[in-house]
This record gives sequence, structure tokens and C-alpha cells, in this order.
Amino acid sequence: MTDKKSQEGLTIKKEENFSKWYNQVLNKAEIIDIRLDVKGFIIFRPWGAMTIENMFKLYEEELQKKSHKPTIMPTVIPEENLKKESSHIEGFAPEVFWLKEINKEKLALRPTSETLYTPMFKLWIRSHRDLPLKLYQRGSVFRLDTKATRPLIRTREIIWIECHDAFATKQEAEAQVQEDIDTTEKIMHQKFGIPFLAMKRPEWDKFSGAEYTIGSDVLMPDGKLIQQPSTHLMGQKFSKVFDAKFKNEKGEEEYLWTTAYGPAMSRILASIISIHGDNNGLVLPFCISPLQVIIIPIFNKKNKNKILRESEKIKEKIKCLGIKIEIDSSEKRPGEKYYEWELKGVPFRLEIGEKELRGKKLTLFIRDIRKKETFAIKNLSKLKEYGREFDNRLKNKADKFMKNKIINCKTKQEIKKAIKNKKIARVNFCSIDKQGEKCAGYVEKEIDSEVRGILANKKEKPTGKCIIYGKPAKEVVYIGKAY
Amino acid sequence: MTDKKSQEGLTIKKEENFSKWYNQVLNKAEIIDIRLDVKGFIIFRPWGAMTIENMFKLYEEELQKKSHKPTIMPTVIPEENLKKESSHIEGFAPEVFWLKEINKEKLALRPTSETLYTPMFKLWIRSHRDLPLKLYQRGSVFRLDTKATRPLIRTREIIWIECHDAFATKQEAEAQVQEDIDTTEKIMHQKFGIPFLAMKRPEWDKFSGAEYTIGSDVLMPDGKLIQQPSTHLMGQKFSKVFDAKFKNEKGEEEYLWTTAYGPAMSRILASIISIHGDNNGLVLPFCISPLQVIIIPIFNKKNKNKILRESEKIKEKIKCLGIKIEIDSSEKRPGEKYYEWELKGVPFRLEIGEKELRGKKLTLFIRDIRKKETFAIKNLSKLKEYGREFDNRLKNKADKFMKNKIINCKTKQEIKKAIKNKKIARVNFCSIDKQGEKCAGYVEKEIDSEVRGILANKKEKPTGKCIIYGKPAKEVVYIGKAY
Repeated sequence: MTDKKSQEGLTIKKEENFSKWYNQVLNKAEIIDIRLDVKGFIIFRPWGAMTIENMFKLYEEELQKKSHKPTIMPTVIPEENLKKESSHIEGFAPEVFWLKEINKEKLALRPTSETLYTPMFKLWIRSHRDLPLKLYQRGSVFRLDTKATRPLIRTREIIWIECHDAFATKQEAEAQVQEDIDTTEKIMHQKFGIPFLAMKRPEWDKFSGAEYTIGSDVLMPDGKLIQQPSTHLMGQKFSKVFDAKFKNEKGEEEYLWTTAYGPAMSRILASIISIHGDNNGLVLPFCISPLQVIIIPIFNKKNKNKILRESEKIKEKIKCLGIKIEIDSSEKRPGEKYYEWELKGVPFRLEIGEKELRGKKLTLFIRDIRKKETFAIKNLSKLKEYGREFDNRLKNKADKFMKNKIINCKTKQEIKKAIKNKKIARVNFCSIDKQGEKCAGYVEKEIDSEVRGILANKKEKPTGKCIIYGKPAKEVVYIGKAY
Repeated sequence: MTDKKSQEGLTIKKEENFSKWYNQVLNKAEIIDIRLDVKGFIIFRPWGAMTIENMFKLYEEELQKKSHKPTIMPTVIPEENLKKESSHIEGFAPEVFWLKEINKEKLALRPTSETLYTPMFKLWIRSHRDLPLKLYQRGSVFRLDTKATRPLIRTREIIWIECHDAFATKQEAEAQVQEDIDTTEKIMHQKFGIPFLAMKRPEWDKFSGAEYTIGSDVLMPDGKLIQQPSTHLMGQKFSKVFDAKFKNEKGEEEYLWTTAYGPAMSRILASIISIHGDNNGLVLPFCISPLQVIIIPIFNKKNKNKILRESEKIKEKIKCLGIKIEIDSSEKRPGEKYYEWELKGVPFRLEIGEKELRGKKLTLFIRDIRKKETFAIKNLSKLKEYGREFDNRLKNKADKFMKNKIINCKTKQEIKKAIKNKKIARVNFCSIDKQGEKCAGYVEKEIDSEVRGILANKKEKPTGKCIIYGKPAKEVVYIGKAY
């Protein structure tokens, strides 16, 4: 199942042309295939699908630990539902895929599912005893993105999880927004090794229909920011238009407070590939790699059976540890195999040959640092620990990359310079409410960058006037180029 | 999260009005919700979604064991792809949901994905060394069913797995069809306890685009047959129109041989609910129930904390066995709790009160046989075995129900009688090729039933003339009412 093309190595260096490198690694590591030729829709090949599946598992485990329960919602939304919340439909209208009408029924492919969950909250929740209600689904949403599409990053079908939660009070809903940020931290950062800035978005950049949005911004190797999971305080906006109420402890009717959280696996995978990958291909975190260890048996005609038999024994021992492992017993030369599994980002390679068996020591190749070491067979049980260390190394390296990327800027010129150097500018800014939009417009037009917002979890005090037109500054904002 | 309505018990007896009982149990056990009011689209509530998730897991494990690898295909298919195989589009055309055109691009919601996989086979497979290639995806397909829709049974969005496999020879492809039947047996029958007849469908009833189709027919309590997973030999029909070739060992180009297999989780769940359920609600197999054991602590104000603490200890012990367990510590009366978890079909209930703790013996209620027994705390590790026995009992009961349901019929009158008695008629029949269609038409019109096909795995010899018009009989067919 390898294309002719993918049998050649990577021909583009990540540091020289990130964008081309990215496309090449997606193709050659057989993550996705874009040759279906429908704009913005991609095919996940087994290596990509298995990786995404493992990402889903870790994410869902964490959500379930935090009392979320799964649901499956229809892929379509009736027009009537979608149009109920005016700022919601205003924002999403240009992006909606509509079905051809059937018996005058107007249906949209869901771009997000607030307008499916909220009317059900109305039916499922009667009293404060039914709260909180925390639901999620994994599945696809569809957005007719009008910008240029880009594999995994900007697609028209998005593979994601969406959580929709209902609460009795604003306070609890806001606590949920914080919990969602913690989920991003626990999974995307701690597990997948992708650091992020939790940014409260400016008023003009929030989710259509939300009171406020907190996005997580990840800095990609090309110096651009990509929005990863965002969490939204919907407040009572959706519950009011859908008349979704509950009886409080005093028996009075109140509107529900709702939140939404949307980690997109396809998009997070884009960051994982981009940040951890190198000029030999993918480097997948141990916790999500479809294979965690690949055994390469080194044999000749004479000792083939023996080597394969011993490899099988070692495989079974490692499998018992709960490690995903296979033997590549194909007829290719060992060198070819090394190269192929490095391209696919498998964390560990075990080489097993005559020499190794004699010494009861295997040769272990570690993908991220590309180092070989000898590894005593009696120590096999340490492989899980090695896996944890592997993931820690990826995370630490990514954290280190992020460090020193935030530059305090005092002039527009300094912002330009920071952006040019693929960094994030931290500046005094008038406001992230409506009245700041004009200054943000300047940033967009003159500096070709975006005001991404303020830190969500730390109130930072400005130290001077707004950097753009010298108005009084209420905020410290972060400016960067964005996807 | 309980509706007023669902707090009342089942008011309809399964044996008196199966159809109403079915709808009531779906609603009150909180499997699905149909109140979205879009024909044929349903919402899976957490209890239904978790059950389906467990079904997916068992199915995917089995498919992966049989060397299938996951993929994720786009939800849409370009018109050009869908129309390539003429008998395929002829069959599916009336059922396709089309999107409104975007820049003249005509896209359909996939009704099935042969026309996505085959063009990719062309790109991914070059030589016999790349074969077999066995892929699957879990997801939704969409069919604009024009008949009356029915929750889980006949829906416009179907939650399923579809396998698409490519082989070098017809023989291997046919072996795959057999393997697919085995998968249905291993999972749907052995695990979920749903017996079926593997039927080679008549020519006029095969999948649009297939050489032949083998469907699995399940007899529902109302005497109607429902088609569960079907497997199709596509032969070279799709590979020819998509020009999907491979180089054989001699270096010659040949068209691929392909198969497809489609187990629909939503539909199989309908059979599980219908066949195992009783007048107290759901009875879920241990292997797929979202909760396998529910602990009901029996306490008063005085001993509440102690009982809850002890319950927690027992829960943790049972959890360590890999059993899904929770404590219902809500303020409802124990009787209410019993009733609610019976309705939801949880296999085992453990009652823990003062009396139980004193004697170190819990009270175990077994859902299917509705019997209580005492259960020594030191025997907790036997619960898994109890679970296996539970599932075996469900299977045996369902097998017993199927027994004697097949009636050898010598006259049309006997067929009518068999059908009236909710049974399946086994008759001599002219042919399941085109020339048998007229006789099948008679069966449909005059007996209001369907010729479902011949046994897929056993060549049965007819013992007389075709029962309809007395033509020579080539086959022994099975006739039943169908959904």
C-alpha cells in the first residue's frame, strides 16, 4: 500500500520550506490523501486514521473523567433551528452547506451543534436536579470555508469532538470554560506535547453567538498561529431563543447557562505533525502512535526462521505490556525498513539479529533523538517508561521552542520586526471590546497580523498607551500572524 | 436528565403490541430521542450512544483481528464518482441526498462508499504485493428512504461500519464474503446473542452494483425479518469503471476483485433491544451494556455514610476486574432505583445494606431472569463469569426462539399460514435468477411476503416443483414478511 512517490524520501527541508515539507510529510507518511479532488475534503489513510483514533480515545477518556457523556446527533440541522439565534446564523450563514430541499424541508449540514443540543436541553432538563448536564459527540462538522483550504488545517469537513454543557448558574458555566482550558492543557499539551496560549478573543473574533470565546493559540514552525480547541461561554443566548429553562431550588423558572468546547482532532494532528516532525518525517508521540515499537529482524537466508521466531517471542513479551508492536518481516532490506518507519514516526525501533540474540541485547533506535543504544532483553518492561520519557522530550522541546517567542513591543516597528522573526508581539492595547476594532483593523492592514486577544488566566496590566493610535490602554494583547 | 414521561413504567406489553412496546422502550430507557422532527434522523442519548460505542469496539476489534485497517472517508461524494457504475447509481439514485451546488460542484451525501474507495484503490495498489488491501470506516451514510421511517430500523442517517476490500483473485474475494459472514456470526450472534440466517439474495434483491449479495436475516418478535449485516461480492464491476488495476506475479495488469461488508450498529441495536427486551424494559448483553453492574445502597439517615463508604469499597474492587460499575447514591427510594435500572437493562444489580454487610453477602439481582440471589463478597471475582453466563443465556433464549420458526411448506396456503403464525416458510422455488422474479412477484402480491433467498452456506436440493406456478424448481428459498 505504498505509492511509487512515497517510496522516495523527503526532498524538502522543514526549515527551508515549511509549507512544502508539511504537504510532503502528510503524503509520504501516508497520513492523508488529497487526490479525491473535492475542495476541502480529505481522506485519512490507515496511518492517519489510527493516529486520530488514539487521539480521540485520550480526549474522550479525559472528558468522561470530567463527567461528560457521549451522544450522537444528526449530521443535519433544520433551517429553523439554525436560524434561531441571530448572531449565530449571521456568523455561520456564509459557511453553511445546504441540502437540496426535500418536500420543502430545508436542511443544513451541521457547522456546529448548539442548535441541536439546546432544544434537546429544553426537553431533557426540568429542574436543578438535572444539572449540570455535560454532553459531547465525536463526529464531523462542515464549513464552507471560502479561504484557501489546507490539509488538516483549513478543511470543509472537520473531524472533531464538541461538548455542550448546561448549568444552573453563570458561575458554574464560567468554571466549565476553565475546566475546558484544563482539558486542553491535560491532553493537547501534557499528552500530545503541544504548548498553547489560552487567549480570550476580542469581541470581534468570538464565536458567533457566544458571550465570549477562549481560543488556544499554537505557534507553528512557520511563525503563524493556529487556533486549536476553543471554549465558549454561550451564557443564556441559546437557552433564551430555544426557551430552555429549568426550575431552580426555589421552584422558579430560569434560563439555562450553556457552554461549548470543540477540540478538532484533524487540526490538532496538524500541529503535532508540524511541531514534532523533522527532516526524516513524522515524529509521533508514544501515546498516540499507531505503532509504538517496530521490530526489524536482521536475517539472511540461513538464519531467517530462527531470527523471526525469536523476534516473535520478544514481540509477544512487549505486547503483554500493552504496547502496540509489530514485526516488519517483509522482504525489503533493513535499511529500507528503517527509513520507512522513521518516516512514519514510530517512536522506537528494535533491531534483532544474530549478534543481538547472542548478547541478549537488542539495538534500540529512538526516533526523536535518532540515537541507537543497546537494550538488554531482560529490561523490556522498561519500554513503557521509555515511552513516557519520549513524550516528555517532545513536550520539553516544543515548550523550549515556544520560549522567547513572545516579544514585548513598544512601537509598531517592533511589532513588524517580531512578526518578521516569526514571533508573537505583546503590546499595550486600547480594548478588546468593540471600540478596539479600529486599532485591530490597523494591525491587520498595516502589519498583516491579528490581535489574538488577552491571556485568559492572568490579568496583565498595560504599562503605557495603546500602541496603535496612543489611546488609553486597557489591555495587554498578543499579536501574531495567523492561519 | 429524565423526562416526566420516562419516569412512568412501560405501559405496553411486548407480546400485545410489539411496535408500540418498541417505541416506548426506546424512549423510556433513554436510548434515542425522535423529537427533533426531521424525518428519519434521530438523536442518540448517552445510554444509546454508549451502547453503540461498545458495539463498535467489539466489531472493530474483530475486523482488525482479520487485518482490516481503519480509514476516514469524506462524508460527500462527487456526482461524477457516484454515477460511474451504472447499476449502482440506478439503484441508489432515488435515495441520494444532494447538496446545493457550490461553484457548479455537485456533491452527494454518501449513501455507501464504493465510489470513494475504488478510485483510491487505483492510486494505492500497484502490484499483487499490495494485496489484499482490507479497509474500513465507522461513520454515517445517508439514504433518502421513501418508505415510512422507523427509529433505528429504517432511518435516513445510518450509523455503521463499512468494509471495502480488494483482492487479486475472485477466489480470495469470495473467501472474504465468507469471512464477513463469520464476522457477523462471531459478533452479532456469539457476542450480541442475535441469531440470523445467512441468505444469498435473489438477483432482483442484491446490492446495486454487486455480483451477488449475502444478507443476514434476523427474525424479530413480530414475525418480520430484518436485514442485518450484508456482504457483497462486487467482482470487477467497480474496478473496471474506475480502472483500478494491479500487476499480477507475471507482470500483467488485471482488474481488482472487490467486496464490501456493512454492519449497521444502529440497526443491530434495534434487533438487540427487540429480541432481548421484556416488559420491564431493556435487557442489554453484558458485553455491550454501558453499565454492567449497578450498586444500590440501602441506607437510612443513620447509616448512610457507612453504607456508601462500604459500597465505594466494593465498587472499586469490582472496577479492578474491568467491569463497568456505578453506585446510584441519589435520594430516590431503592424501589425506584431498581425499577429505573431494570428499565435500562443493566445486567446485574447489587443491593448493599446493613444486613448484607453484616453477613458479608450481597444481594445480586440478575436482570434477564429477574432473580435475586445472595452473593458472597469474597466471590466478587466471579462476576465476569456471571457476565459470560448472562450473555450465553440471552443467546440461548434467542436461538430457542428461532428454532421451529422455519416451516417446510408444500402449498401456497401453507405459506400463508406460516406467515400468519409469524414464521418463515421454506419452499421449493424455480430460481433466484432473473427468471424467478415473476414467481417472487406473486409471493409479494398475494402473500404479502418476500422471497429472501437461499442459504448462503448450504446447497439445499428442492424436493418438488416450484410452489408458485409449478415450474421446475432449482432452489429451496425462504419466504417471510420483512421490514
